[in-house]
Amino acid sequence: MKRRDFFKGSSALIGASLLSPTAILAQEHEHIELKDGQAKNIIFMVSDGMSAGTLNMADMLLRRKEGRVSNWISLYEQNRVKRAFMDTASASSLITDSAAASSSWGGGKRVNNGSLNTNADGSENTPIWMKFKAAGKSAGCVTTVPITHATPAGFCVSSKGRSDQAGIALKYLSSGFDVLLGGGTEFFSPSLREDKEDVFKRYRNANYTVLENKKDLMHAAKSQDKLLGVFHQDGLPYTLDRSNDASLVERIPTLSEMTATAIEKLSKNPKGFVLQVEAGKVDWAAHANDIGALLYDQIAFDDAIKVVLDFAEKNKDTLVVITTDHGNANPGLFYGNKANQNFDRVQTFKHTNEWILSGVDRNTSASTLVDKIAEAQGYSISKEEAARILKHYQTLDEKGIYNPRNLPYQELARLQTAYTSVGWGSMDHSADYVELAMLGPGSELLNPFVRNFELHNLMLQAAGQPGGTHVDS
Amino acid sequence: MKRRDFFKGSSALIGASLLSPTAILAQEHEHIELKDGQAKNIIFMVSDGMSAGTLNMADMLLRRKEGRVSNWISLYEQNRVKRAFMDTASASSLITDSAAASSSWGGGKRVNNGSLNTNADGSENTPIWMKFKAAGKSAGCVTTVPITHATPAGFCVSSKGRSDQAGIALKYLSSGFDVLLGGGTEFFSPSLREDKEDVFKRYRNANYTVLENKKDLMHAAKSQDKLLGVFHQDGLPYTLDRSNDASLVERIPTLSEMTATAIEKLSKNPKGFVLQVEAGKVDWAAHANDIGALLYDQIAFDDAIKVVLDFAEKNKDTLVVITTDHGNANPGLFYGNKANQNFDRVQTFKHTNEWILSGVDRNTSASTLVDKIAEAQGYSISKEEAARILKHYQTLDEKGIYNPRNLPYQELARLQTAYTSVGWGSMDHSADYVELAMLGPGSELLNPFVRNFELHNLMLQAAGQPGGTHVDS
Repeated sequence: MKRRDFFKGSSALIGASLLSPTAILAQEHEHIELKDGQAKNIIFMVSDGMSAGTLNMADMLLRRKEGRVSNWISLYEQNRVKRAFMDTASASSLITDSAAASSSWGGGKRVNNGSLNTNADGSENTPIWMKFKAAGKSAGCVTTVPITHATPAGFCVSSKGRSDQAGIALKYLSSGFDVLLGGGTEFFSPSLREDKEDVFKRYRNANYTVLENKKDLMHAAKSQDKLLGVFHQDGLPYTLDRSNDASLVERIPTLSEMTATAIEKLSKNPKGFVLQVEAGKVDWAAHANDIGALLYDQIAFDDAIKVVLDFAEKNKDTLVVITTDHGNANPGLFYGNKANQNFDRVQTFKHTNEWILSGVDRNTSASTLVDKIAEAQGYSISKEEAARILKHYQTLDEKGIYNPRNLPYQELARLQTAYTSVGWGSMDHSADYVELAMLGPGSELLNPFVRNFELHNLMLQAAGQPGGTHVDS
Repeated sequence: MKRRDFFKGSSALIGASLLSPTAILAQEHEHIELKDGQAKNIIFMVSDGMSAGTLNMADMLLRRKEGRVSNWISLYEQNRVKRAFMDTASASSLITDSAAASSSWGGGKRVNNGSLNTNADGSENTPIWMKFKAAGKSAGCVTTVPITHATPAGFCVSSKGRSDQAGIALKYLSSGFDVLLGGGTEFFSPSLREDKEDVFKRYRNANYTVLENKKDLMHAAKSQDKLLGVFHQDGLPYTLDRSNDASLVERIPTLSEMTATAIEKLSKNPKGFVLQVEAGKVDWAAHANDIGALLYDQIAFDDAIKVVLDFAEKNKDTLVVITTDHGNANPGLFYGNKANQNFDRVQTFKHTNEWILSGVDRNTSASTLVDKIAEAQGYSISKEEAARILKHYQTLDEKGIYNPRNLPYQELARLQTAYTSVGWGSMDHSADYVELAMLGPGSELLNPFVRNFELHNLMLQAAGQPGGTHVDS
């Protein structure tokens, strides 16, 4: 506190200045509140539901397709980060859901699956982005799933259940978070919300600029307002489908683009900022055993790492955390004579399994499906195999869209294994200890084995905030 | 070399002593050849075919069953080791087999799957334990599979094919390795070898003590001879089956017991020693998707880590490497309402899936199989499920023993998932980057991302041996 106290004293002497002491300090001594080695900014990056094999295959895909190493693995090659294994359990299970996982980081305590910073006795834990807001920092979240989804919500709100996304949209507003970018129009638009409330209007009235597309985003950082960007009804389209659809490319920003805008906007606060960046659809792709969706969304996350590293290199007072909240499906590239060639097929994929299966209905013929898969992913299944997949559609009602339990994701994935050599252990989360990388001030606090909730106090401590000195259990 | 030169000089002055200079140096200056910070001993530990989920589940099983952390994870909790991610590819594939993996470490070059330190052009790479033998150190291998199997062989011999285990048994002899402990009687006994050669006799004639059971092993370290211990015809029995069979407990040593004897014996060499310790049946269990076999053999490996750490703590000039050669099957504990309770079932398992399936034949009734599984693993499948498993036996000839392709391992594992919440992505190796931990002199050379073959020179360099100064490709 010595330096801060010194400047407090000196600021009294210049009290008659036109500028407030805080503004002078901000301009001339931007890092003034910080002790040496403390974090002014924190950027917390989550590839949601990333098993070890997901990180591995995305890196191998980049090496073979583009001749480059992923940014994540490159950090290891260059020995630039501290690494840890993280135990991801929740209060109720060895296998967490995303709400409990984010709450463990966000509230410093493990809660039951499905809960957001709410303990079994109903008491609530203050979310970490609220603590940093109270300390004068700006705070934001960026994601490829609805911005009201479990992982951003766990840093921002308390709620008995993760499913109340319409309510979470309002809680964000009352807390005044500075940048919120992702999907989830259905929880903001009066025409889509059950209560018909125009939440976009309420944000505008509270001095938010509301962004609806990529063009809006590109001009947003100059705005003096806070930012709410909601770019799709549900989660954003998968990277693979987006990049092969010109209208989506024009309309939907990438995770990197959202991250860059968020950083540009948030970093204007002289007291610093905190930002969560989530590749939320990596988890959705793993649930669906959808290899093209999984790997290209993991690569989109890796691209966002680059954006964050570029900022952190120039702003050494930035703590960067790169991790996942839990494994999902434990995919792997498995042994076989043609494993390399099979895996290389993913390089020329044009569309995800979701694109294939949501483009099929009860009237689709086997030969049409054979052609559709060949168009999307470059290999030809047999008509008999196509017929096996189509059989599932006869049992579906008209609502059976986008749900691994409804559409035959598992059947397509199993069949696909013969063409990609990728296998899957499940369609759900795993208990695996997960990979975590950290760089910047505070990373020296990281132990090689860490329990998810311990990161809460680590972040507070890194930033010199109260409550960051001991570990809750 | 300064210190060595100094003692060379001084030893000349005492050349008239009754003791040879070497013996004097050995007694009075045991670490004399080493520069400060160099490794006198290297212990290289391999849990063969260990995916991330295997390490995770073994640790969780120990925590829940015995209330203790695994020795491996404990090293991380205590911040005692350097960690790396290791890329495990072979020359021919993104997914290595155990021969190519061990050869990458053993010969410093990636070779094609199936090869032992033999390049595509027929040239051979000198195995690392040969190099250390030439430098005067003692060298040995300990494993739970045949001692002639791929992983020990990759440190000791060159051979076009890994399958020539009868030939590898003779190659070990001609190189004079000091301690060889594992399974594989079939490659040593005249009654089992195709060529009817009595290889045990040849070892005895070359001053080896041949050990046949645990009792032999317990007295072996005192012997002045070299040690060949071959305790079972093929691989040793799985830990889980062994620990529930009094005759096996009496006859078959554990990996820890073999490791302790090997260290006691090898450490008598004043010039130091090198030792490979392999939990080879972790790989076999993963191939068979046999969760009880997998986790208890992983725990047996973890027990051996403790033996090694106890030695390394007292002998700080020992480099310890703990890793795996590749993932296998990518198992995981997956989400579900009863995942914790299901996983806890493994705590009371008495026998492996191998024990169940090899105790069944074409005449077994469904109700007998139901009872057998309940006896072995404590849960009751339905008679219909039992009948599905038994159906496979109708297609088998009499030779169909111990082979995942013959016995219905996959069917049992799939059925078992409902009772354990453990799922599997495949029955084969994966390309996953794998976990590696290192402590002791030389560990400072480890980069957080390492390619398997780079460990060859790292070990040479750690021990101050020639060839350890740059990295082959």
